Amino acid sequence: MRVVRVPLGRRSYSILLGDGVLPSLGSRCRELGLGRRCALITDSSVERLYAPVALESLRKAGFEPELVNVPPGERSKSVAHVQHCLRSLAQARLDRRSFVVALGGGVVGDLAGFVAAIYLRGVTLVQVPTTLLAQVDSSVGGKVGINLPEGKNLVGAFHQPALVLCDLATLATLPERELRAGMAEVVKYGVIRDASLFRRLENSYESLLALEPSVLGPVIARCCAIKAAVVSEDETESGPRAILNFGHTIGHALEAVGGYGRWLHGEAVAIGMIAAARLSCDLTGLRPQDAARLERLLGHLKLPTSVRLSASQRGRAMTAMQRDKKVRDGEIRFVLMERLGAVRHGIPIAPGRVEEALAGLKNGREAAV
Amino acid sequence: MRVVRVPLGRRSYSILLGDGVLPSLGSRCRELGLGRRCALITDSSVERLYAPVALESLRKAGFEPELVNVPPGERSKSVAHVQHCLRSLAQARLDRRSFVVALGGGVVGDLAGFVAAIYLRGVTLVQVPTTLLAQVDSSVGGKVGINLPEGKNLVGAFHQPALVLCDLATLATLPERELRAGMAEVVKYGVIRDASLFRRLENSYESLLALEPSVLGPVIARCCAIKAAVVSEDETESGPRAILNFGHTIGHALEAVGGYGRWLHGEAVAIGMIAAARLSCDLTGLRPQDAARLERLLGHLKLPTSVRLSASQRGRAMTAMQRDKKVRDGEIRFVLMERLGAVRHGIPIAPGRVEEALAGLKNGREAAV
Repeated sequence: MRVVRVPLGRRSYSILLGDGVLPSLGSRCRELGLGRRCALITDSSVERLYAPVALESLRKAGFEPELVNVPPGERSKSVAHVQHCLRSLAQARLDRRSFVVALGGGVVGDLAGFVAAIYLRGVTLVQVPTTLLAQVDSSVGGKVGINLPEGKNLVGAFHQPALVLCDLATLATLPERELRAGMAEVVKYGVIRDASLFRRLENSYESLLALEPSVLGPVIARCCAIKAAVVSEDETESGPRAILNFGHTIGHALEAVGGYGRWLHGEAVAIGMIAAARLSCDLTGLRPQDAARLERLLGHLKLPTSVRLSASQRGRAMTAMQRDKKVRDGEIRFVLMERLGAVRHGIPIAPGRVEEALAGLKNGREAAV
Repeated sequence: MRVVRVPLGRRSYSILLGDGVLPSLGSRCRELGLGRRCALITDSSVERLYAPVALESLRKAGFEPELVNVPPGERSKSVAHVQHCLRSLAQARLDRRSFVVALGGGVVGDLAGFVAAIYLRGVTLVQVPTTLLAQVDSSVGGKVGINLPEGKNLVGAFHQPALVLCDLATLATLPERELRAGMAEVVKYGVIRDASLFRRLENSYESLLALEPSVLGPVIARCCAIKAAVVSEDETESGPRAILNFGHTIGHALEAVGGYGRWLHGEAVAIGMIAAARLSCDLTGLRPQDAARLERLLGHLKLPTSVRLSASQRGRAMTAMQRDKKVRDGEIRFVLMERLGAVRHGIPIAPGRVEEALAGLKNGREAAV
């Protein structure tokens, strides 16, 4: 088992990674010194696969878990589902010493994490991410939240987990499309902080997609370590943490245009990274051959690298971007690449130039809209 | 103008109190260095009285306020109204530098404060309390939140305001019943921390109820200072802050039994304080004559000091208490008085004894259920 420590003072926690670690959930939770009552929040797909093992492990460790489930998919990151979960917790009489276990992908982690953040003004959260995306990204760092019809992740909190337990074995049941989408975030870590990770991905993407534990384990651990380092430099996203949003400004806008749930997050981020890399060639001196390496790697991973948007879709994408949290007084700010492994954040780009970049996305591997 | 400073490190802020200070809202906000966009959240009763002055002041200071209103009353502290406010903020494109002004009583402050806490994972909050209860209690201290059908304040956050602006002149339009209810919290501060404040209330309750500024100003400032001191000792309510809940454990349960909105918070707290004082005589050595002084003062203020509950109402009150955040592993914990001006918190009382105390509440001035 690998352990990645996230150093955040009083809120420090560990990410435990290993093949087949889910049955140790209960005993790991016991080490946290919590009350007996807890809620296991999951979606109905993950429930069928992993809830029995998780519940049994919690019960064996002396806990009284309440199972709360939501439908799978991004639409569950809604106010209505938050309310459903909160009421379930209240009905099960969870108290301040109780805790919430988020078992599932990014949607479940964000939703359950937000529920834990606001129930009784905050109870302990344990993340058990079962998708690649959640393991390398959403379960680490404390950003939790939900969507509004007006935009993605417009509502939320910073609420650090007390423990993250990543069972690599759960990735075996992940649909291939989701695995590939998760790889987009893995690529992002190479781009923003670690050129050697990027090279490793170029050399071993086939073994990664085949889930070879000897390749996958170290890569996931490295991604978590990068995220942990960035987060501990800037817990509440006032500055450097923004680099984690590389590819996300346009990515989120594309998700908004496609309607939540029709695109996978990683697919939208892949296209967003392409756009950001091209803007980087113009604005922050990225060499075109490095932008090309990024496009090639995303292509090897069979991620979309282009999208054909109508003028009205581009307009809606611009509106979505201008509602983004990173907007300041109307100016859209980007994370751009200086080279592979190094980015700069907070670069303002005029809306007209951003729309041009969207229009330029029509060449490449078409997105599965 | 009086200034009470709340010392909370990076989150320190000032409470400004004065007669007729509302028109200075805009210039006070300008001192905070925020973005131009803001939301003024209020209820439709307060809107009619004070929103025009508040909006004009904000606009004169260069801000672009969006007015968001909710119905008056406790029922607005709901998930549905939070959603309405959040969507209004998103539609008005408030960004991270924007801020929320809560103009109104405790309900508006709790609701708008919670909205500010979770919109974009937290934006700046300015409290402009217009009721006595909100001025001495809910606007200070950073506890914000909403109710669930399962119980009061079960959902929320700790989100400190950047400024609290108390205009004593707004109390002139407060219905007398609400003014008296607010006095219950004023009495509470005397009970928990300041015997001389308690004596001042015994001697001058008539001037207070007549809103004589020379008496009212210092009393409100003293209450804020006590709350500020308690909060800064224990920002997130892990320990000593619990003393602010004196009278609230039973008070909240009574509110739950009455249905939110049928009782005023302060009325329920008055009865809760009576019950807590009687338990204190039995359990923490309070002298019966001091319990009697408390009952007499509440009586002078024409606050209810008794309630006749049916067995089924008592049962529901017990259930509500056991769902309270202060419950730990099924045991209900109370704040009890040692003497006037000094209390102890975290005292566990068996449910049977608590139910007895509820049954004993039938003698006294009847509550307006």
